[in-house]
Amino acid sequence: MRLRASCFFKFEISEPTPFILMLRPRSGAHQWVEKEEYRIFPSIPVFEFTDSYGNLCQRLIANPGEFSIVTSSEVVTSNFIDEGFRAPFIEIQNLPDGVLSYLLPSRYCESDCFNDLAMSIGEGQYLGYNQVAAITEWLRNNIQYIPGSNNEPLSANQVRNKGFGVCRDLAHLGIALCRSLSIPARIVVGYLHGLNPMDMHAWFEAYIGNRWYTFDATQIGNPGGYVVLGFGRDAADVAVFNQFGPSVYPIEQNVQVEEIF
Amino acid sequence: MRLRASCFFKFEISEPTPFILMLRPRSGAHQWVEKEEYRIFPSIPVFEFTDSYGNLCQRLIANPGEFSIVTSSEVVTSNFIDEGFRAPFIEIQNLPDGVLSYLLPSRYCESDCFNDLAMSIGEGQYLGYNQVAAITEWLRNNIQYIPGSNNEPLSANQVRNKGFGVCRDLAHLGIALCRSLSIPARIVVGYLHGLNPMDMHAWFEAYIGNRWYTFDATQIGNPGGYVVLGFGRDAADVAVFNQFGPSVYPIEQNVQVEEIF
Amino acid sequence: MRLRASCFFKFEISEPTPFILMLRPRSGAHQWVEKEEYRIFPSIPVFEFTDSYGNLCQRLIANPGEFSIVTSSEVVTSNFIDEGFRAPFIEIQNLPDGVLSYLLPSRYCESDCFNDLAMSIGEGQYLGYNQVAAITEWLRNNIQYIPGSNNEPLSANQVRNKGFGVCRDLAHLGIALCRSLSIPARIVVGYLHGLNPMDMHAWFEAYIGNRWYTFDATQIGNPGGYVVLGFGRDAADVAVFNQFGPSVYPIEQNVQVEEIF
Amino acid sequence: MRLRASCFFKFEISEPTPFILMLRPRSGAHQWVEKEEYRIFPSIPVFEFTDSYGNLCQRLIANPGEFSIVTSSEVVTSNFIDEGFRAPFIEIQNLPDGVLSYLLPSRYCESDCFNDLAMSIGEGQYLGYNQVAAITEWLRNNIQYIPGSNNEPLSANQVRNKGFGVCRDLAHLGIALCRSLSIPARIVVGYLHGLNPMDMHAWFEAYIGNRWYTFDATQIGNPGGYVVLGFGRDAADVAVFNQFGPSVYPIEQNVQVEEIF
Repeated sequence: MRLRASCFFKFEISEPTPFILMLRPRSGAHQWVEKEEYRIFPSIPVFEFTDSYGNLCQRLIANPGEFSIVTSSEVVTSNFIDEGFRAPFIEIQNLPDGVLSYLLPSRYCESDCFNDLAMSIGEGQYLGYNQVAAITEWLRNNIQYIPGSNNEPLSANQVRNKGFGVCRDLAHLGIALCRSLSIPARIVVGYLHGLNPMDMHAWFEAYIGNRWYTFDATQIGNPGGYVVLGFGRDAADVAVFNQFGPSVYPIEQNVQVEEIF
Repeated sequence: MRLRASCFFKFEISEPTPFILMLRPRSGAHQWVEKEEYRIFPSIPVFEFTDSYGNLCQRLIANPGEFSIVTSSEVVTSNFIDEGFRAPFIEIQNLPDGVLSYLLPSRYCESDCFNDLAMSIGEGQYLGYNQVAAITEWLRNNIQYIPGSNNEPLSANQVRNKGFGVCRDLAHLGIALCRSLSIPARIVVGYLHGLNPMDMHAWFEAYIGNRWYTFDATQIGNPGGYVVLGFGRDAADVAVFNQFGPSVYPIEQNVQVEEIF
Repeated sequence: MRLRASCFFKFEISEPTPFILMLRPRSGAHQWVEKEEYRIFPSIPVFEFTDSYGNLCQRLIANPGEFSIVTSSEVVTSNFIDEGFRAPFIEIQNLPDGVLSYLLPSRYCESDCFNDLAMSIGEGQYLGYNQVAAITEWLRNNIQYIPGSNNEPLSANQVRNKGFGVCRDLAHLGIALCRSLSIPARIVVGYLHGLNPMDMHAWFEAYIGNRWYTFDATQIGNPGGYVVLGFGRDAADVAVFNQFGPSVYPIEQNVQVEEIF
Repeated sequence: MRLRASCFFKFEISEPTPFILMLRPRSGAHQWVEKEEYRIFPSIPVFEFTDSYGNLCQRLIANPGEFSIVTSSEVVTSNFIDEGFRAPFIEIQNLPDGVLSYLLPSRYCESDCFNDLAMSIGEGQYLGYNQVAAITEWLRNNIQYIPGSNNEPLSANQVRNKGFGVCRDLAHLGIALCRSLSIPARIVVGYLHGLNPMDMHAWFEAYIGNRWYTFDATQIGNPGGYVVLGFGRDAADVAVFNQFGPSVYPIEQNVQVEEIF
């Protein structure tokens, strides 16, 4: 399917403020960017670089006053996410070097704390895809998805204790559970067609059967329509905007995803 | 200045043909991509990756029949290229690690063969920028720039012997001369506003005074208006399309660059 | 100074166990490895790769039975660590791209939670080196360094609450405090000459004045004698051995560092 | 087999001379470095970095006077190189991204000039390993291997015209022939046990059947005993020493490889 994903953020800045943005989608095996627009108002110098995960990041210093970011992309992406029933667990020794770091605990995914829970959820499952599918199902049944319930990311431990969270929070717990079963897992941020309420979205991927599979505990069934902005170990790596100095929040923001033909 | 740079290529394909394209500009310190479009007809799977120089490359298999590529970008770039009068030569030991490979000879830049010529051209010059400016001036005076004169890249040795060449050929000789003075140099391919006749363009950069400076022996003065598609050691690294199997040439092509406001 | 740093680990393995080791020092600006030895008993296939931080890592599957690792290195390193009194804070916008990720919170360094403490410790200090020196001094005075007190890494929050920890734990708190002042900071693991009791060691580095400086709250004065095995965001990245499956601990281990002439 | 590979180079330096060395073997899937020694006399600062091929390189400035390098490594390597009879040609579209650059022509491998010869040599062969085996056999029969016959590298075109060359020259022609059949190929430098006369050695690898295979037209049969120092596109990338400024040649040198038990 072909989607147009757009976002608009307006900030009121009081002192020169460094930003690092992650708002430009990249083409890859998962999506093809046909058209793309990225504008900053007022126009100021922006420097783009690639981070260690391969994401395109934009650096700039916003000056005092109003500051807006407008992006829009037309992306070809799958109608359905791939299911991989019985895609096998990959033994540690057979994982590609670059995937190994997704086994380690990270800021919001304390995977070292979830052995027992992960074992009990995955019990009796065929090792690999089916374990992660069971984790995702467990999240759907045990952690309430409440959009807008938290502004700051919750760690997997916090999500488990609270019993609810935003998309990012559910992803953190899913990732922590996968890693504690020695399944590499990473967070993905981007857009999802049909998300309700519409907003930026986060989900996770697990490395099984020699590829990454998509999982999203906030959705039912396996609809597609995902547009990826960035990959990382958890939300600390993939903030769509990271700002330094006194906190600044958008005074206006808008996210839209529509199918185009 | 803000430029819209567009290209169109149409091929007639007789058997399934792998292509590697380098037609998506990246944002960086040198330019900011505000808008961009990249379409393939008929629509087929395309996979994008980053090569070891940081260029975005697109892989695909073109099927038999007509096959077209249409790209268009709106890019903010400098009105004038920076001049660096007396920007100093950087001693080898002070060059960043990643710059060192641009000192080595490469397919079309046999820098190991140009010591005497480079020494004589650069003689008496302040080491660094002024040497490269002298090389560029020497190219303007000694190698005739004849657009369309060669289809296949010429190496620096061949250019010197022939005495003429296309933009890419002059760049090869300029790069070889820089490297033989231990100045890192690389080719750049992309677009140039006002190029006559309009086409894809190639020029070179030299690393002096702790940054890359642009040089273009095909132009007089230091006009700006450059849009970069890729960097590399020479034309072997930065073909805007690289195709494997029986040779295929565009049956139609069109390149346009216009200023927008 | 020239040091010989050696380690010996013996494990009793009950089932085939994947290991990732980080026990081979690399030469760099900070140290030069003159001689080095790395043996596994019994001899089994080992594959080495470089992680995303540039560390050399060794992968292997240990078979059931006894399994030992013996390494020894002769390394030239500084007699004293560099002090950088008044080395300035680097504004975010001037940090190299590759350093930015060391500003983010990580598994054991919840830098998002330490703004107030970091501000109060660094208050009145010249921005940059002097702030980090104040943080290090604060750690010396407020967190008791008790070798062997914890087996598992503590996060910065946990260290602060407990009031004591091992070298790694103090480093985590130091890193979190630096990052909350927008100073990039990373953990370092390796050896320290004269450490008492002798063991593997961990300390931290902060990026100030356009370079990394070493800080170690467990030591007084600025003695040198450090041999680096790896860099990372925190202990999750730089385990000298990381083992998957049922936990395995060394049944014998020995670390030695001696000066050689 | 376990080999001890050693080299010794002594230079007489007349002015401060930057060197880049590639004399430290890395462990990988192909070899395991058990012990290693790398000394410079007189002792001066050396900085090690990893180049874009993953090779460990050492940078230093040699001061006027005598300057020596002594290295020695104990390496576990295969007794025989793998043969891959009928290992298949990998279609361009299925090659890993990182392998693609080994299809391009390079300084000493003008693969764009060898289509006809490569086609005639490979004619009738099963595509892949068997083609490269035929190329290697063709080299053995048509290009005389004369150790010491050239000091400077010859390009594939030059080797073909001369009809003889050193190990490096044969490798260049082999690589050019492979690439012109769309088979990725790279040069390897290092040591070979039993080489006669003993010296540094060069050979090549081709990417077939989803892995790299070793080929060496200077040897008969497929003996093993190879110790790798570096990989690259051709000799321009993998000089074991690269020196800048007025040419300097070793006044003494010695290479030894012996089996140890």
